[in-house]
Amino acid sequence: MSQYRVLIDANDEKGLVHKVSNIFYNYDLNILSNSEFVDRESNKFFMRSVIEGDIDKSELVNALVEVLPAHSGIKVVTPKKKNIVLMVTKEIHALGDILVRHEAGELEANIVAVISNYDNLESFVSKFDIPYITISHKDLERQEHENKIIETLQGLGDIDFIVLAKYMRILTPRFVETFENKIMNIHHSFLPAFVGANPYKQAYDRGVKIIGATAHFVNNNLDEGPIIAQEIIHVNHAYSWKDMQRSGRDVEKIVLSRALKLALEDRIFSYANRTVIF
Amino acid sequence: MSQYRVLIDANDEKGLVHKVSNIFYNYDLNILSNSEFVDRESNKFFMRSVIEGDIDKSELVNALVEVLPAHSGIKVVTPKKKNIVLMVTKEIHALGDILVRHEAGELEANIVAVISNYDNLESFVSKFDIPYITISHKDLERQEHENKIIETLQGLGDIDFIVLAKYMRILTPRFVETFENKIMNIHHSFLPAFVGANPYKQAYDRGVKIIGATAHFVNNNLDEGPIIAQEIIHVNHAYSWKDMQRSGRDVEKIVLSRALKLALEDRIFSYANRTVIF
Amino acid sequence: MSQYRVLIDANDEKGLVHKVSNIFYNYDLNILSNSEFVDRESNKFFMRSVIEGDIDKSELVNALVEVLPAHSGIKVVTPKKKNIVLMVTKEIHALGDILVRHEAGELEANIVAVISNYDNLESFVSKFDIPYITISHKDLERQEHENKIIETLQGLGDIDFIVLAKYMRILTPRFVETFENKIMNIHHSFLPAFVGANPYKQAYDRGVKIIGATAHFVNNNLDEGPIIAQEIIHVNHAYSWKDMQRSGRDVEKIVLSRALKLALEDRIFSYANRTVIF
Amino acid sequence: MSQYRVLIDANDEKGLVHKVSNIFYNYDLNILSNSEFVDRESNKFFMRSVIEGDIDKSELVNALVEVLPAHSGIKVVTPKKKNIVLMVTKEIHALGDILVRHEAGELEANIVAVISNYDNLESFVSKFDIPYITISHKDLERQEHENKIIETLQGLGDIDFIVLAKYMRILTPRFVETFENKIMNIHHSFLPAFVGANPYKQAYDRGVKIIGATAHFVNNNLDEGPIIAQEIIHVNHAYSWKDMQRSGRDVEKIVLSRALKLALEDRIFSYANRTVIF
Repeated sequence: MSQYRVLIDANDEKGLVHKVSNIFYNYDLNILSNSEFVDRESNKFFMRSVIEGDIDKSELVNALVEVLPAHSGIKVVTPKKKNIVLMVTKEIHALGDILVRHEAGELEANIVAVISNYDNLESFVSKFDIPYITISHKDLERQEHENKIIETLQGLGDIDFIVLAKYMRILTPRFVETFENKIMNIHHSFLPAFVGANPYKQAYDRGVKIIGATAHFVNNNLDEGPIIAQEIIHVNHAYSWKDMQRSGRDVEKIVLSRALKLALEDRIFSYANRTVIF
Repeated sequence: MSQYRVLIDANDEKGLVHKVSNIFYNYDLNILSNSEFVDRESNKFFMRSVIEGDIDKSELVNALVEVLPAHSGIKVVTPKKKNIVLMVTKEIHALGDILVRHEAGELEANIVAVISNYDNLESFVSKFDIPYITISHKDLERQEHENKIIETLQGLGDIDFIVLAKYMRILTPRFVETFENKIMNIHHSFLPAFVGANPYKQAYDRGVKIIGATAHFVNNNLDEGPIIAQEIIHVNHAYSWKDMQRSGRDVEKIVLSRALKLALEDRIFSYANRTVIF
Repeated sequence: MSQYRVLIDANDEKGLVHKVSNIFYNYDLNILSNSEFVDRESNKFFMRSVIEGDIDKSELVNALVEVLPAHSGIKVVTPKKKNIVLMVTKEIHALGDILVRHEAGELEANIVAVISNYDNLESFVSKFDIPYITISHKDLERQEHENKIIETLQGLGDIDFIVLAKYMRILTPRFVETFENKIMNIHHSFLPAFVGANPYKQAYDRGVKIIGATAHFVNNNLDEGPIIAQEIIHVNHAYSWKDMQRSGRDVEKIVLSRALKLALEDRIFSYANRTVIF
Repeated sequence: MSQYRVLIDANDEKGLVHKVSNIFYNYDLNILSNSEFVDRESNKFFMRSVIEGDIDKSELVNALVEVLPAHSGIKVVTPKKKNIVLMVTKEIHALGDILVRHEAGELEANIVAVISNYDNLESFVSKFDIPYITISHKDLERQEHENKIIETLQGLGDIDFIVLAKYMRILTPRFVETFENKIMNIHHSFLPAFVGANPYKQAYDRGVKIIGATAHFVNNNLDEGPIIAQEIIHVNHAYSWKDMQRSGRDVEKIVLSRALKLALEDRIFSYANRTVIF
């Protein structure tokens, strides 16, 4: 028996659940879990089913293609470890959280490599027997530096997700297009507030009573793209902006790990500038 | 066109979604929203669909009965205001929150009456043109007092829910059986901690850093039954137990109103000692 | 014996706690609670003490003036009900929450009046025996309309706070200057995100996973000024912007009532664009 | 110039702040931060000041002893790294979080050793160059096993805190007495609910909608003692007890690390069965 995750997004029309569940029934597949959502505003239908049974993947895909509207998104995924690359600059907390979870067997992922523009986390990462690749931006123009990263990434084989675990350099549109829908970022703020540099200083200056973090896909520039998860903590007048930053790190790492887990389990649909999460 | 909420709970078996969605399809019904859950431990299937189309309610029920396993729970509900009675003792906050929401048209409910064992909230409730019925427990034995309440309730016509909005008297099993699955309570604690009298004093004595509230159905005694909603707030050493109580009231009223809204929208399945909430 | 709240803000220098506590000691005053904070960045010292003893208020003020740096803020407040005016447009939830708390005796406040640019909440407010003053903006220029409100407010005697409980008209700088440091607003967003009109629609369009509310003093325009309290709730893809708005109301009313309580108990120092809250 | 943390707990009486601040003033010490609290119920006074200036520690202690009531608790602490030992059984998450924070230089602590009754985390801990000591309980009676741990701990020099980072064996009163006020535990539940074995299973069976974790000092048995920090997350019907456990781990590690940080910074007073935290 095989287990599959079936992911469907389609223009909504009457009978979609009927048609899909019909296929599952006719092929004698067991539904382990099933979620649906219709976005009335955009008239989009989303469905995620976990099924098991005796069927070939391509046969199932073909059956679905036949009954679903043209141009539907149809994915049938076998649960297995995805290949991810982590990109960092100098901070250890988000990276460390992912490495410990990986060590604990909590993540459906192979960490193929950690890439950084500095070498200061190398000794830490090497403890975990994961390749650490330093690609310094020193003396390089932005595009030159990025080209080196892109080449490196392309040399690492099939990558499912690139996780920016506090990678503090701005990515160019070329980078984003090259790895479309594969880049996940943690923004140290509850977007859309405090876009840009040093959001904790901005938050402090504004005298806020909550600070937060946002995990999102990157589709245009570093601070935009569909939001996956957000969380906040309360602060008060006694917090300097450095205190906010310190406390914010706890939120950042939790939010990024939560978003990564959702992505690895194929629970996220991303469309327009939003996500549907099952 | 009619709109219905279809509520199904059944022993799980292969093809249930297929069978139900088949009926919707064949009767040309439009699915507005659809949620399913299978509890693997108890092998129970739950489904809530909101549909619209041209069909008679009894015809739809019959069609469902035909395809679903014997002894399935099948309800087809027309969205409309439910009849509720609020029971209180002396505190105004949870009651007041529901009355203001009712005034704002936020609740799918007719408030048939407020019943209390004291008259001190009468002038407040009468502002809202809602009958206030005082049934004093003074000089009465528990069962006598309760019998008077039961009679009063039975004289109020069809009641969908009895909401204990800080009703501080213990109910006997007879009361609970008479209004089975219809009684909702707000417990001023995050159950199962601090069952019993003055939970805020208990919480204070234990030196806790969070306090909470729990909305639940009453199926045995006042502090048990399936939990619908829970929420907490953080407290610190500067809180006396009276401060905790004061802060706790904010949580209590929010949690009770949230639970009531879920019940009025037919979103709660209750089984064993738990709830499934769509 | 009298009880006072002593509120001091001063440029920080060595010995301030010593000097103030010396006065309390020499006058044989009992300290019931005491909070201090030094903002290192601006070198400002803040202190709030609740004391009791046999002393005349002016004598205590004079003694403090003598030992504290020139230009210090020194307030000695007798705990008593403050006079507040609520301003609303059409929504009932924040207003209703304050009125019920007032009815419950929870607020250290007299609600002098409710002012609105519409009359639709009049029958609700009149239930609570509180004057409702409609000042329609119809056929009036902004400044004309506002002048009428200012005159009305000035005719209501000494007002400690004007609470904008979802008053949806923009106030001019003249209004803000007239009632400097007395205007409190609830913004239906976690500022500084989604400033301006319909923040729930903006939040929906951005695909956020949390929504929030911010209570703040108004010192320039409606969406700025020192933040007093903020809170959030989690939302998901199934929320339309109207669902967000509905859920947001619960946060709005809780945050506004929390901020109002802090103000009534003289717990807020406001300076630059921030608050210190004891 | 030296910096000290001054920690005072005393029976409350008039003039304590005056007397202490007098000493600071007379010795020309600068107060960097200052917090006080009086527990009216137990008539206890607590104060934590961070000061700097030219004074010998013992001189300052003597000056304080002279003015404070007999039997007061007086501590003058030089900020420096404290020695801690971590005890674990088999789970990596709480341990890993502390080790990564330690690596990041976030903790005012030397991790002297990790002690476990199993060897399965040895290779993980050794990555961080921290001694891992396995003391198996196999074939040993409880007291024998514990004696070996006590001896080992006593051989490790001065230990400030023993952190039970998911150590799953019950400690005897002898152990607790030997290291009085030095043992910190993370309980995988929001105490006092679900004391005892497998709280996640208990929570699941009760159908709760929130789960939590509690960090506390151990003064009697593993599940009691003054609470330092608590946090919760929301769960729903779709969570199996194993899902609850997985999600609970995120709360556990955050709460334990937060409590540890407070202890390392000398911010916790513990008395009766409660904590005052500045």
